[in-house]
Amino acid sequence: MKIQKKHSNLHKILDIIIRKGEISRIDLAEITGLTRAAVGHLVDELMSQNLIMEAGIGEARGGRPPTLLQPVPQGCYFIGAAVFDFSWSLVMMDLSGTIIDECTYPISRMTPEKTVSQLIKAIKELKDKHRDKRILPRIGVGTPGLVDSEKGIIVSAFDVRWMNFPIADMIKKESGMSIRVVNRSKVSALASYYLHNPENYGNIISIVIGTGVASGLILDHKLYMGSSFGAGELGHTSVIPNGPACLCGNRGCLQALIGENAILERGQNLARINSVSAPEKIDDILNQSREGELYHQVITEVAEYLSIAIGNIINLLNPDLIVLSGPVVSGCPQLLELVSQKKNYRSMLPNQDAVKVISSDWGIQTAAVGSAYLVRENTREILSQP
Amino acid sequence: MKIQKKHSNLHKILDIIIRKGEISRIDLAEITGLTRAAVGHLVDELMSQNLIMEAGIGEARGGRPPTLLQPVPQGCYFIGAAVFDFSWSLVMMDLSGTIIDECTYPISRMTPEKTVSQLIKAIKELKDKHRDKRILPRIGVGTPGLVDSEKGIIVSAFDVRWMNFPIADMIKKESGMSIRVVNRSKVSALASYYLHNPENYGNIISIVIGTGVASGLILDHKLYMGSSFGAGELGHTSVIPNGPACLCGNRGCLQALIGENAILERGQNLARINSVSAPEKIDDILNQSREGELYHQVITEVAEYLSIAIGNIINLLNPDLIVLSGPVVSGCPQLLELVSQKKNYRSMLPNQDAVKVISSDWGIQTAAVGSAYLVRENTREILSQP
Repeated sequence: MKIQKKHSNLHKILDIIIRKGEISRIDLAEITGLTRAAVGHLVDELMSQNLIMEAGIGEARGGRPPTLLQPVPQGCYFIGAAVFDFSWSLVMMDLSGTIIDECTYPISRMTPEKTVSQLIKAIKELKDKHRDKRILPRIGVGTPGLVDSEKGIIVSAFDVRWMNFPIADMIKKESGMSIRVVNRSKVSALASYYLHNPENYGNIISIVIGTGVASGLILDHKLYMGSSFGAGELGHTSVIPNGPACLCGNRGCLQALIGENAILERGQNLARINSVSAPEKIDDILNQSREGELYHQVITEVAEYLSIAIGNIINLLNPDLIVLSGPVVSGCPQLLELVSQKKNYRSMLPNQDAVKVISSDWGIQTAAVGSAYLVRENTREILSQP
Repeated sequence: MKIQKKHSNLHKILDIIIRKGEISRIDLAEITGLTRAAVGHLVDELMSQNLIMEAGIGEARGGRPPTLLQPVPQGCYFIGAAVFDFSWSLVMMDLSGTIIDECTYPISRMTPEKTVSQLIKAIKELKDKHRDKRILPRIGVGTPGLVDSEKGIIVSAFDVRWMNFPIADMIKKESGMSIRVVNRSKVSALASYYLHNPENYGNIISIVIGTGVASGLILDHKLYMGSSFGAGELGHTSVIPNGPACLCGNRGCLQALIGENAILERGQNLARINSVSAPEKIDDILNQSREGELYHQVITEVAEYLSIAIGNIINLLNPDLIVLSGPVVSGCPQLLELVSQKKNYRSMLPNQDAVKVISSDWGIQTAAVGSAYLVRENTREILSQP
């Protein structure tokens, strides 16, 4: 099933069919600028490889209603993995984007060695369980930190103290498996893109609020990486220039204002003022943050700071969708309400009218799903596999 | 010279040759995934249309050194226009990107009618002067305000009080000419992209500081428009949340802190404190802003605020080039120095290491040049013109 140069359009046709979900030959010809004959030939080739199939009839636009083409779900499978909270999440996705299996593997210690060996074990077990399937050999992997996706190196992940961790090479050496590794906030954004209808939203900012505050950017329907894979450091944009010190060395970063530690500290201060016992964990605060409750003020402030950062994004990037997620968001449903109540995100009105701000509770598997979508995007590899 | 569907790759080949400036057939085949035979055929077609030519010999990589292909400068010409300071700037560009003519036309009154009639007059005179040349019928036009480039409407330009100004239709109706209209900060960014080597920088933020503060974004080598053409509203991102009121209705926007009016006001306050005569115009301040001079403090503050905004961009977008321009930048060379001295842009170090911050004094014609590049990008139109 080697891809021939003369079939350089083959992967483009497959890519469009996968992204659209279903499409007619005529529309394929229109989008690609190829002749209908050429499209017909390429479609035949993809059908003979059992990657696409005819399914249903589209709307007629004068003449006979066209037959629609869809990906064959069983045509190829993809494994996506992501590390969160001392465990690996893995999913298996079919060619149509449906998750057909998922699992979680705890990591005993967050050393590079333990992390890698547990991932290899997890992938092997998942592959063994589905040994009858045609699985793409390249695994998508989402990790924390700044990730050089070209070299397959985690350059720095301060939370887990990884520096220059050559994860792709280590996995290759120990198991022969190939991975594509990307920061987990970036693959989460990719999941948001595909889990919503890609026809509806092309510029998506996915914001994850936990201990850290990170974001992933889908711009013009593509995952935006930046010049050195560093795009999306929303947590370290400045909101209150003379605000509290941040771990990064600056002051008043969004993360220093609305990250879990900042919320906990603010809650503890408030408890002291009110002479009640101090909250021990973030949930103690989030669970008492509705109007009239003890920690409502804390969440009001969080909403205020978050709105400023969101306003800046709306002004600068004019997105059509902003997706909030992470422990702080899922633990505190009223946060989205408070943010949405601020009708004015400190941004220009036309940009504000163009955007929808929502929360997502897809949970920690979102990044694993995004990692699977990431490798599914490479239709050249789907076609060149044996 | 109608483009055939079977030649859908023709415009791609032309596009690559224009962007690269020179390239061999072998490299074209590698980039496009087409066979060398197919590339050879397409190249012949473009040569027969006098759009590209053989020019010079490339480096051998085993075997015979390859012949390089270049655009024929005279193959097609492009007119770009932009409105600034009560006048239209126009340039004529050849296919290789060289500006071969330029002119300026004052606008007596900034009404839609006067503005349109003066542009039509200017284009006609430029076309007449170059009537021997093959000029692309579509003119690129940069204007202030929020521009719906699809509909050809200036939705709102507060400075000149234009609202829902259907500039494309008006020009079409009165002269039969087609235009493509885009916000002038966006086309300025496109000029920055092409005037630097596009091979070197793919993620460029162009920041123009005058009465307003606007930006244009080149991301992944393409002009980023946003979901409703509103990307780049850097001037209205929040820098000091409780800062001075901005025209947009919010507080502490970058424009309210470093726009010309803000600088003038700050200078006047400083003059009052120092009991000297108040500055009347912005240049009175910029010209006395070196270290030890009266208004140095004003510019130090401007640099501080600008650095915060630049830091936010570096964190969020991880660009490789930031270009500062506009009257405030060209009138005050020490501003770039002060901004660059802030080694720490309040941004993550790897992102900071990836970016270069420079100033540009290309002047007001930059936007007109960008407008010409804008229409040159549409190689389909170049091929389909008679």
